[in-house]
Parts: sequence; structure tokens; C-alpha cells
Amino acid sequence: MKLSLLGLSAVLPSAFALWPLPTGLSLGTTPLTLAKGFDIKISIHNAPADLVAAVQRAKGYLANDKLQALVIDRGASSAGAIAKAKSLPSLTLSLASTANVTSISEEAVAPIESRVESYTLTVPADGSGAVLKANSTLGLFRGLATFGQLWYDWEGATYTLSAPVQISDSPAYPYRGFMLDTARNYFPIADIKRTIDAMSWVKINTLHWHVVDSQSFPLVVPGYTELSEKGAYSASKVYSPSDVKDIVTYAAARGIDVLPEIDTPGHTSVISKAFPEHVACAEATPWASFANEPPAGQLRLASEATVNFTTGLLKAAAGLFPGKFFSTGGDEINANCYTQDNATQASLAASGQTFAQALDTFTQASHAALRSEGKTAVVWEEMVLANNVTLANDTLVLVWISSADVQAVAATGFRLIHAASDYFYLDCGHGGWVGNFPTGNSWCDPFKTWQHAYTFDPVANLTESQSKLVLGGQSLLWTEQSSAENLDATTWPRAASTAELFWSGPGGDVDAALPRLHEEVYRFRQRGVAANALQPEWCALRPGACDLTA
Amino acid sequence: MKLSLLGLSAVLPSAFALWPLPTGLSLGTTPLTLAKGFDIKISIHNAPADLVAAVQRAKGYLANDKLQALVIDRGASSAGAIAKAKSLPSLTLSLASTANVTSISEEAVAPIESRVESYTLTVPADGSGAVLKANSTLGLFRGLATFGQLWYDWEGATYTLSAPVQISDSPAYPYRGFMLDTARNYFPIADIKRTIDAMSWVKINTLHWHVVDSQSFPLVVPGYTELSEKGAYSASKVYSPSDVKDIVTYAAARGIDVLPEIDTPGHTSVISKAFPEHVACAEATPWASFANEPPAGQLRLASEATVNFTTGLLKAAAGLFPGKFFSTGGDEINANCYTQDNATQASLAASGQTFAQALDTFTQASHAALRSEGKTAVVWEEMVLANNVTLANDTLVLVWISSADVQAVAATGFRLIHAASDYFYLDCGHGGWVGNFPTGNSWCDPFKTWQHAYTFDPVANLTESQSKLVLGGQSLLWTEQSSAENLDATTWPRAASTAELFWSGPGGDVDAALPRLHEEVYRFRQRGVAANALQPEWCALRPGACDLTA
Repeated sequence: MKLSLLGLSAVLPSAFALWPLPTGLSLGTTPLTLAKGFDIKISIHNAPADLVAAVQRAKGYLANDKLQALVIDRGASSAGAIAKAKSLPSLTLSLASTANVTSISEEAVAPIESRVESYTLTVPADGSGAVLKANSTLGLFRGLATFGQLWYDWEGATYTLSAPVQISDSPAYPYRGFMLDTARNYFPIADIKRTIDAMSWVKINTLHWHVVDSQSFPLVVPGYTELSEKGAYSASKVYSPSDVKDIVTYAAARGIDVLPEIDTPGHTSVISKAFPEHVACAEATPWASFANEPPAGQLRLASEATVNFTTGLLKAAAGLFPGKFFSTGGDEINANCYTQDNATQASLAASGQTFAQALDTFTQASHAALRSEGKTAVVWEEMVLANNVTLANDTLVLVWISSADVQAVAATGFRLIHAASDYFYLDCGHGGWVGNFPTGNSWCDPFKTWQHAYTFDPVANLTESQSKLVLGGQSLLWTEQSSAENLDATTWPRAASTAELFWSGPGGDVDAALPRLHEEVYRFRQRGVAANALQPEWCALRPGACDLTA
Repeated sequence: MKLSLLGLSAVLPSAFALWPLPTGLSLGTTPLTLAKGFDIKISIHNAPADLVAAVQRAKGYLANDKLQALVIDRGASSAGAIAKAKSLPSLTLSLASTANVTSISEEAVAPIESRVESYTLTVPADGSGAVLKANSTLGLFRGLATFGQLWYDWEGATYTLSAPVQISDSPAYPYRGFMLDTARNYFPIADIKRTIDAMSWVKINTLHWHVVDSQSFPLVVPGYTELSEKGAYSASKVYSPSDVKDIVTYAAARGIDVLPEIDTPGHTSVISKAFPEHVACAEATPWASFANEPPAGQLRLASEATVNFTTGLLKAAAGLFPGKFFSTGGDEINANCYTQDNATQASLAASGQTFAQALDTFTQASHAALRSEGKTAVVWEEMVLANNVTLANDTLVLVWISSADVQAVAATGFRLIHAASDYFYLDCGHGGWVGNFPTGNSWCDPFKTWQHAYTFDPVANLTESQSKLVLGGQSLLWTEQSSAENLDATTWPRAASTAELFWSGPGGDVDAALPRLHEEVYRFRQRGVAANALQPEWCALRPGACDLTA
């Protein structure tokens, strides 16, 4: 039985925590418990180590989640049924073909077009073993995440009331991301790893890592270590090559590709600490005349030396990341900064180029450097809307300024990622952060609720062929007002809402989704992620009772 | 030298973390370190145990804070000066009169009119000992908090660059509070205690504990234990009498009074779980016709049995709390609930009372019961503005709906606390939480920034005599969308902003305050409280550089 997200909502039991909702799902009403000796078996010869480790983690969650169902009695009235239920002895993982078994980690960073995340999961009600099948270890990993969400705890019994379960699942969109800015404020590696774990639970497959910006340069780039030595907030607030390897390895083993971003030519003030010759209007004041936020500073893109510096930096940085995508940014280029910069004006005069031509040269050189490292360039929307820049056909464009720009970006024919501030910016709505501005409000006010993001239509106003350009979407956390201290509660469960939108597809109903999202919040907490409360617990235990019209 | 808050800002060094700013302060420019054998001595015969404990905690903070100054080099350029600095051997605490030495805990819960929180603190630059003097142990405790904020760490040296320090400090307002709602979502005791510690660091002296509400009844009240047995979210999500004693004892030892609130007659749906006979329109639907949020339910105030139940409950609850204030709430009474309630209509008909008369009778009985337990009643503003209720002259009124209501409340002649939603509600601006309402926004949008609260004028539009009715103010955290997970970051540093407003007095300048508030955020984190980032760290290290016009 294949149900649409909308149709499905009507038949879901009240305690049922799958998130994102599988695209094909059939549920029964038979209680089933995990057997005392329950085991997860891998029926794959020479199973990859990261799959073995994923199974171990999955077993850990099953043992430790201890999530009580979000019903008024938390499951007490099911105790009898649970006690009498048949028990599930095992879950067996297998691949459709074992001709070429690749690891989760390899598949997670493979070109997005070639990734296979689909799987089927069968959990019989009769006491026979459950079966998880896929065409890829990545698919098996996604299925393990689903399996781990099927279970509740009642006094030590791990149970579901919804056996048999038959799932045939695959994502609506291949790109489901979360962007973290580690430049405005630094995030310790442990916090990034915890976030990666949480992302994997809801099948997000890309960490868009906005690693550096004008405020700090925490990335230690081989050959360019002065950047972090002089530009990190401190010697300990850095990501060394081994830290990066740790993070990308940790992510890949959890089915997550890391899309790094070194934003250019804007958002680069901090480069002036180590290489002042490459930065125009570095820390120029008043900053508002030179940048959208302090400190000002942009790469002297018209300078051949700066082009060479940038391409060298990008190549060196690219070597740290196993994935195919690499973002060169390209947002918020400030014209006045260059107009006022004598060096840039001299370079333009010497070469006879216009600014637009120089930007084109700079961007082509940057992207060629990345391509030589096997990377596909990613840019913010201005690079196709505001600037006339030559880009390779496979360039990926991030729509950020407004969802109203999606159509224009799609019209350029480039593939795009939804990241519009009016739906997906997690930082909006916390007031102004600029100093000496007591009446300042958030530029992208109001706060973007999970409900608002959930109702987004990824193909609104697009033609059928334009719709195919949409690779997916992501939540974004810019961190002017964030740090490790509020990371979890600011990100979760809202980023999970967007994860479901792009895995299960649009058209979901917020009313039907809310009980499941509550359960995801409670499960996250059981796993050590401080997800934010959606409602009073009274409401969480009573699906629908706190609806507007209830 | 006594400086106004505004005048003072100009002369503060850039690394200077006192918060709230002392009302009388003189600083030097001489470096001074804490001596290796630095000790805090109590020159009081038979010093109270809680003062001894407070000194131990203060020494712990001095040893463990390890807060580097928020300057670009974090103090490196001061290393030479620090190495050569004289060192402070000791801080000695003494009382002006030791005739009647009372404990911090006793003084913290004494009538607000009789509390003495002032102190003087002298930290010489010449290597002689520092002296903290007060007329009360509570004053000494406030001075200890200040002393603990004077110091930075540089490679193991604990130093200030601002000796000698001469402080003569006393609060502008006697009431400086923080309200926590533990009914919409439950908060573990450890989280409440951590919040109490944080409150004490910024000299907040009242925890307004909105302990129960329509959604849950976690308070275990002797003689009325059915309320929590049937109304708490779970058997573990309660505050037993020993838990309450633990909390009020912990708070009092930190100079904090606990003002409990059992909101009546509205916000009492949950009482119907144990005592259905006392609740009108219990869980009636559509809830929006019967209450401002689900579930509906109000005490049958016209029933003599319900009056007796309520007075009994209040008396029993009052016995759990050592302080003088006790709130009976009185906000958001829903008329339709009573109009539709046959029992209430029958009671009114039998007694010949109007609804207003019945509310008056109910309230007078409730307040008389509290008075018999030595309590002073506290109410929300509707009890003096919307309803014609007889209240004792010493009743304290909380202004919550809008700061525009302050003048009207003051005109009634009652003492008041500033708690207006348009300045002090920490929960605003996080979108709508009611289900099935994807476009819903926060009713009190936008988010209340620390800057906005900081610019509040407590006596705006009040006459001189009305101004004397203002006891102080507080931040408030209603927890429909909050739980332990986001408690720290949602509360801090914003509640500290309000704490300074009511300790140091209004008129402070947000631009001058920001660097100090940054330092308070960083110090909070060193002490284990996850205070929210105010700005990128780049800004935190460069006072003024991220101002709007910088």
C-alpha cells in the first residue's frame, strides 16, 4: 500500500514516531516487542566497518531510548497487550546485490546523482524476523534510522502497537541539508558531531558548513595556516586538518556529505589579518557603507595576485573534504568597497576590465581550481541573478534572499537548493544584534516556525522542467546570536520539519505532523539532543487537543 | 565618587564585567592580582552557616571562573603588568553591627520593606586587604557577588586592571524578579537550582514561581496530594514538600525569596482531575470559547464548597514557603465559562450574588486565608483593573498585559511590579504554538530584546507619589514553548538586563552596557549556565565596533 502523506495522516496511530514519514508505508495494529535476545544481523559478506558500527549504534538506541509513547497514560493501558505480544527475534540487513559492496561513507560523499537512499523494511507481527533490504549500504543506514523510531518503552519492554510494518521508502529530493555558520561564533567539534548524529536521525544528508566568514577563520588550511593563526578567535577555536577529517569521517559514516563554504569575494575581512594585500576595505568604517555587517572587507578580485591566492586557498581547502560540492559563496558583494579601493581601481584600469568582467574572471578561476580538484561549484543566488558571471552548467545555486527569487533562479537553468530566508533561516526573529540600536529588530523577522517551513512548496510557480532543477532544501543557522549554548534548541525540531518536507515531499499537513514531531522531540532528548518544546506537555500527550479549533 | 549610570559609562574600562552596575563606584587603573594564598575572612562572631557557605562558593568561582577579558588579545598585552602587579591577600567581611546577626536566608525572606541589600566594598591597590562591609548578611552576600565579578584570568593569574576599587552599592528597587512557569512544561529541580544560582549572580532577589496551571499540577500540597497525583505530568514530574524545601532553602541561602503562585479562579482546569466538583467548564470545547489556551477550566468561585476548598488549598500551600508574598493570580477570567456552568449559575441564584460579588467574596476569602498564614497577597492586574474586588491595601499587583496599563494600576494606589508582556516576556516571538495553525504567530511578537527591556522607564507617566508604588520588576518565562532544554539560553542574558534596570536604576545606555553584558554572558558560561550569544565573538572582543554607526 502506497499512501500519500496527506492521506496517510488520517490512518496513523496516535503513538507513531516515524520522522520523516516514509513515502510508502503500511501499518498493522498488532502489538510486538523486541525479544530479550533481539539482534541485528548483517547478511553481507565482508560488511563495511561503518555499517557494522551503524548497527551497533542502532542497537544502542534501541536499548537506551526508553521513550514512552506520547499518550496520556504513556502506555500503561497497553501493558497487558505488550505482555502478551509476540516478540521480534531479529532484524536482518541485506543488499539486493553484493557484487560491489561499498561503505556508507563512500556512498554518502559520492556524486548526488548516483546516491541511492531507498530501502524496504518489513517487520512481521508473527514473531518471525524483520528484514531490511536496500541496493546500497546508504539505503540500509536510512532504514536503520527508521527501524529505530518504531519503538516505545513501557517498564522495560520495547514495543510497537503497529505491527506488521511494511515500508518502501525513498526520498522525494536528493539534497536535504542543514547549514551551520561556525565563523560568527565558534562551535566545538563535539557540538558539530552531536548535530551530525541528530541530522542522521531525520535523514538529512548534507552539512553545509559555512566554516569561515569576515569575523573569524577557524579553518586550518594546509599552506595557508596564517589565516587561522591570525584569524581564528583563539588557538583553540580552530578546525585543524585532523579535526576536519574527524568531522567529515563522522558525517560520512552517518550518511552525510559535508559541503564546505569559503565565501568569496565578500565576507572575507578576516583574511586581511594574514594577507592584508588581498583585502579591500578591510575593517573600513562606517562598516555599513562597506558591508552588510561588521567587519567590512572583500577580496581584491581584480588583482591577479589575489586571484592566484584565492585559487590556491580553494584548492588547498578542497583537499580537506571528500565530497563533490564546494561553495564559493558570492553573496552580498559590496560595490562601494571596490569603488573606494585604490588598488582594485588600479587593477581594473591596468587590465581594462570592468568590475563585472573582473568578477567573471575571478569566479571562473575559482571554479576552475575547484574543478581541478574534482569539485562542483555551489554559489549563492546573486551569482546568477545580480551578477553576470560565467558558470559551469552543473553549478548549484542556493536561493537565500527570498523564496520569491526561486522562479528567477530556476529560469537561469541552474540546479537549485531551497534555502530562502523567509522559510528556512533558523536565526530570524531574535531581535537586532547590532550594538547601540535598542529598537532594532531581526532583519528577517518573524521567527520561522516549523509549521511555516513545513508548508513550503518546492515547485511553486515552476514549470515541470524547472521543477527538475530543484535538488532539495535546507535549514540554515547563521550564528550572530547563536553558539553551542543554544544550538540544539534553535535547530531542533525545526530542521527536522524541513528534513521531512524534502524527504517525504511537500503537501504534508501540520496537524497530522505535530504528534509525530512531538515524539521526535522527545526521542531527540532521550538521545542527548536538547530539542525545543513545541507545546505544553499536556498538548503533546493529547494529539489535536491544542489545535486552534479543538 | 557617586556616578550616575549614564555618566559612568564613559569612564568604564573596556574589560570590566560588573553586572548589575553598582550605584556608587570608583575605579583606578592599577593592576592587582589575587595572592596565591588569597582568602576570604568573615570577621563576624558565630557567622551564619549560609554566609560561610556563600564565602566558600565565592572562593570556588574565583578559582574556577578562569574568564579571560573580552579584549582582542584576551589579556596577553597585560601580561607584563599582571606579572609585576601587587597582590591582594584577602577580603574581609564585616557587619556594621553584630548585635543581631541574622542569616542570609532569614533576611532574604523577610518582608521586602525590611530587607537591607546595600554594602560597601573597598579593594585597595597597594597590597593591603580588601574590605566588604554591610548592615546585613544579605548585603554582604550582594557584595560577594560583586567582588566575584572583578576578576579575569590570564595564564593562571587572577587579576583586575582597575584597582583601587571603591563601591558603595544599593538597589534602586527592592523587588527584582524572575518568573518561571513550571506547569506548561515541567522543570527538574537541578535546572531550577542552576537558575537560582544565576539569578543570585545578578542580584535578582525573587523567584516568582508560577508552579501550577491548567495543564499540570506538579506541586505536592499536604492534604491535597490528589492534585499532583492526578494532575502532574507523571509521578516523577512533581515538587514534593521536601523538594520545595530544598528549593526555597537553596534560594534563600542565595538571597532569593520565592513568591509562589497558585493562579485562581482561572487557570485551574487540572484541579478537575482530582476534584471535578470544583471546576467549571473543565476541558470544555471548543477551548477558545472557554479559555485563552487549552484546556479550559475555572474554579466554581460562587460555590461555598469551592471557596472552602480553595482557602484550604492556599493555606496548605502557603505553609511550604517561608516568604511573605503569595500570588493568587486572578488573570484571564473567562466569563462564558461561568455563564455556561449550571452549577455556578445555581450558586449565584441561591446566594443572590452577582458574579462580581461572588468573585469579591472568593477573593476576600482566599486572601484572608493567606493573611492568616502571614502572607501578603499578590495578584495580576485584572484584579484591580477589570474586576471590582476588595483587596487589602498591601496587595501587590503584577502588571502583565501591557506597560500601557501601569498608570491605571498605579492610580488604584496599590503597589506594583513591572512584568509587562511588551517588555519583559521572554517567551514572545517564537511563533504560534497552537496546533493546526501554520500561519500563527506569537501573540506578543516580536521577541523582547535585552536592549528593549533595558530602556524601560519604571516611572513613565507616574506622579511622584505613584512612583513610590513601584516595587520593581521582573522578566517572565511562560513555558508553552520552553523546557529545561532552552531555559538557560532563553532566560540569559535577557533576565540580567532587567535585573540591572531594577538594581542600578533606569536611564542606562545600551551601548555602554553591551560590553559588560557580553562579559556576563561569558562568565555565566564559565559557571555552567548556557547564556545566549549576543553578537559574533568578533564584536564581543571589540566594544563598539558592531554598533549601528561604528
